[in-house]
Amino acid sequence: MEPLLHQVGQRLIRCAPRTLICRKYTNGNGHSTDHPSTGALHTTPILLVSRLYQPANLRDVGQESRQPGEMTCKSQRLMQQSGLIHPSNPGCYYYLPATVRAMEKLVRLIDQEMQGIGGQKLDMPSLCSAELWRSSERWDLMGKELFRLQDRHGVDYCLGPTHEEAVTTLVAHQASLSYRQLPILLYQITRKFRDEPKPRFGLLRGREFYMKDMYSFDVSEEAARRTYESVCHAYARLFSRLGLRCLRVQADTGNIGGTLSHEFQLPADIGEDRLLVCGGCSFAANEETLPSGETDCPQCHAGPLAESKGIEVGHTFYLGTKYSRIFNATFSNPQNRPVVSEMGCFGLGVTRILAAAVEVMSTEEAIRWPGLLAPYQVCIIPPKRGSKGAEEGGAQTEGLVHTLQGGLPRLRGEVVLDDRTQMTIGRRLKDAVRLGYPYVVVVGQGALEETPRFEVICQQMNETMFLSKDQLVDLLGRVETV
Amino acid sequence: MEPLLHQVGQRLIRCAPRTLICRKYTNGNGHSTDHPSTGALHTTPILLVSRLYQPANLRDVGQESRQPGEMTCKSQRLMQQSGLIHPSNPGCYYYLPATVRAMEKLVRLIDQEMQGIGGQKLDMPSLCSAELWRSSERWDLMGKELFRLQDRHGVDYCLGPTHEEAVTTLVAHQASLSYRQLPILLYQITRKFRDEPKPRFGLLRGREFYMKDMYSFDVSEEAARRTYESVCHAYARLFSRLGLRCLRVQADTGNIGGTLSHEFQLPADIGEDRLLVCGGCSFAANEETLPSGETDCPQCHAGPLAESKGIEVGHTFYLGTKYSRIFNATFSNPQNRPVVSEMGCFGLGVTRILAAAVEVMSTEEAIRWPGLLAPYQVCIIPPKRGSKGAEEGGAQTEGLVHTLQGGLPRLRGEVVLDDRTQMTIGRRLKDAVRLGYPYVVVVGQGALEETPRFEVICQQMNETMFLSKDQLVDLLGRVETV
Repeated sequence: MEPLLHQVGQRLIRCAPRTLICRKYTNGNGHSTDHPSTGALHTTPILLVSRLYQPANLRDVGQESRQPGEMTCKSQRLMQQSGLIHPSNPGCYYYLPATVRAMEKLVRLIDQEMQGIGGQKLDMPSLCSAELWRSSERWDLMGKELFRLQDRHGVDYCLGPTHEEAVTTLVAHQASLSYRQLPILLYQITRKFRDEPKPRFGLLRGREFYMKDMYSFDVSEEAARRTYESVCHAYARLFSRLGLRCLRVQADTGNIGGTLSHEFQLPADIGEDRLLVCGGCSFAANEETLPSGETDCPQCHAGPLAESKGIEVGHTFYLGTKYSRIFNATFSNPQNRPVVSEMGCFGLGVTRILAAAVEVMSTEEAIRWPGLLAPYQVCIIPPKRGSKGAEEGGAQTEGLVHTLQGGLPRLRGEVVLDDRTQMTIGRRLKDAVRLGYPYVVVVGQGALEETPRFEVICQQMNETMFLSKDQLVDLLGRVETV
Repeated sequence: MEPLLHQVGQRLIRCAPRTLICRKYTNGNGHSTDHPSTGALHTTPILLVSRLYQPANLRDVGQESRQPGEMTCKSQRLMQQSGLIHPSNPGCYYYLPATVRAMEKLVRLIDQEMQGIGGQKLDMPSLCSAELWRSSERWDLMGKELFRLQDRHGVDYCLGPTHEEAVTTLVAHQASLSYRQLPILLYQITRKFRDEPKPRFGLLRGREFYMKDMYSFDVSEEAARRTYESVCHAYARLFSRLGLRCLRVQADTGNIGGTLSHEFQLPADIGEDRLLVCGGCSFAANEETLPSGETDCPQCHAGPLAESKGIEVGHTFYLGTKYSRIFNATFSNPQNRPVVSEMGCFGLGVTRILAAAVEVMSTEEAIRWPGLLAPYQVCIIPPKRGSKGAEEGGAQTEGLVHTLQGGLPRLRGEVVLDDRTQMTIGRRLKDAVRLGYPYVVVVGQGALEETPRFEVICQQMNETMFLSKDQLVDLLGRVETV
């Protein structure tokens, strides 16, 4: 296994064969990726931009995968052009590695918030039997939105777009469930399927997408409403941690059913939902829930409702006993009598949140992520090969990487080195700005001074600073990761 | 939000409403789960067994979900009886929360090993167009094993059981790919679909399952064979870290195609594959690759081949240009001429590894996991409520939990407290043995002595020790987690 050679500045750096990493940049403790007992990842602290699979030059697949009705929007365009996603069938996308990283971060955040309110994660089959869906009458009700298929025995299935039937059946199968065991909050983060008539806007309205769906089982309507509020608060915390402004609006219950429902909406011009928001109080509603032409706030009666557009990123439903009655999901009350559980269901569009965040935070030319979700936190740009001071700059880069590795274990896997040193700093900086790394560190002329200074561009704040190595380590040490 | 009251021993412990955790057991820094900026998980260090959704009393769903041909085995029986999985449609299972935890750990291990050899994780659609599969002729070749469906426009799709066509198309769409950018190793860990004629053995042969599939693109056959070996080594490391004996055997290439193939097999009585293993050298082969009746080792010719049964948990293929030719996946060589890439593909059965590990490590009555995969590492059993010394034992339990939280952040989320103190220690210990927590800590009579001793059962080593608190913390501090 011959090591490959990469050049950073004019210094040669030995790289592990067929990997993304530079051995020269490991912390020198002699760990090898062949060591059987330590995780191989422990030795992959720095990633090289030249090796990342984030192709900006994927050919458009053309007609065969674009339907006449399909439209594009900023997030779709930016994400396709930057090697984040690539179209496959209509409404279906390859999620390329940087997107998978962002999604894994979002999943960890959602796990934290859901588990923080007692949610337990499970995973239910995508194949849902027609029998189950006929019981709830949604087999017919869902019409063409349901992907349907038969197995080799001619048995009918659908691909689950949501799992009320499946989870209620599961809980109903528990032979004895005591009131003391409730509430139960079960959730999953899995791929869902919906045969959209007009898939469009990239990940915002696809036919395959990732969704977090949680289902709650409570002893009473009062308890179920408390659970409902606690989930809504967890959603609010999630969006607050992401730095996204999110409105909770009164919503229609659609074909899920139930009596109380809210949508979580990110205000955005391309949003497909029309919202009415009161300036005088906290009231906000999806237009479809109010009488046509309504302009007076039904809550405070103090002001006219302002119109806004939104992207729905979450939806909560108080279901009552709609599903638990059908599938006989009961618990024993203190008198040991069976009582039907009160249910809620709570969705978050996982891939939709990624695209919606890019949509509302990015400029026309440059992707911006919520800090916590950025695929990589830091990009380091060393001097152009053969330029004045390239050798000294290469040494500074090496020292910096070494320091970051040793001192900031939380940034493990979060730092990339733009080793395409055949390109000017300016050209690579342009890429880094477009891709939206929260922190870009340029090892330029300042790094050659007696007290070396690094140019640091904080893209979230749109700020540029010149910092010493210690100051830079201090700054990056405060970067929040998940 | 009224706090609930739980009793451990005779001490009252305040619990957060609707959560799994005991506030009393947090480290007292006043963090609340309502705090918007810190992850809610930061305050969920101890989980209560009474609140875990691991129902051991799920009614068998009976006829509607069991096919005539379906059989059971030890892992299926143990996993169903212990609330780890629950049958849905034939060959489809609910993965209950403890299984999801084990699977997430396995996924992290696989990520480490795949990224350690340069693998980059992406995620491809489940819906695969018939057009793509017709190009490779597998649309017809796969027959009834392929789940097929039509969308609302009458377009044909299958649910991907494997993704050679999809990934090769993706890489072929890159407008300019230089030999300098190869090898590319792309993998995903996603749900796959296969309409098995006889789904059986629980997660060992299902119709929906999780698989890790990696695809490699190389400049030459020689380079592709090096990549092939590096993936095989990563697989060997993975099984070694899991403590599973795994044989690499010569295999048939089946309908995937190619010229070189190995299976990774866990020897097990219920294995569906028949292997021939040489006692004299490292040769091992799937029976189907050798002439019928062959008993002489074709490699060393020194000994008879011994028969063994195995569970296939991984499969590697050197594909050559079978798919890259069809989809025109080329790169530019140093002379700037287009050359067709040499490919490999590499599968690991993720859910199958979970079940196979349970199958080979468990007794007839008690589940054993590879240490790294156990859903929870430690179970603490305090005294029975109202028993002699229950109060003092409760205080000791509380102190222990406090110490573990403060001193062992790596065990965050890994420690459960069996708060079902209406049950005797013996009864709960029986459950803990059956569920296979690697470490069970009993707060019994020894904890009431002047120098308190905790009974520690290390289930992996089948050893019982009596340790002081310091010794216990020292022991648990050395537990490896992922």
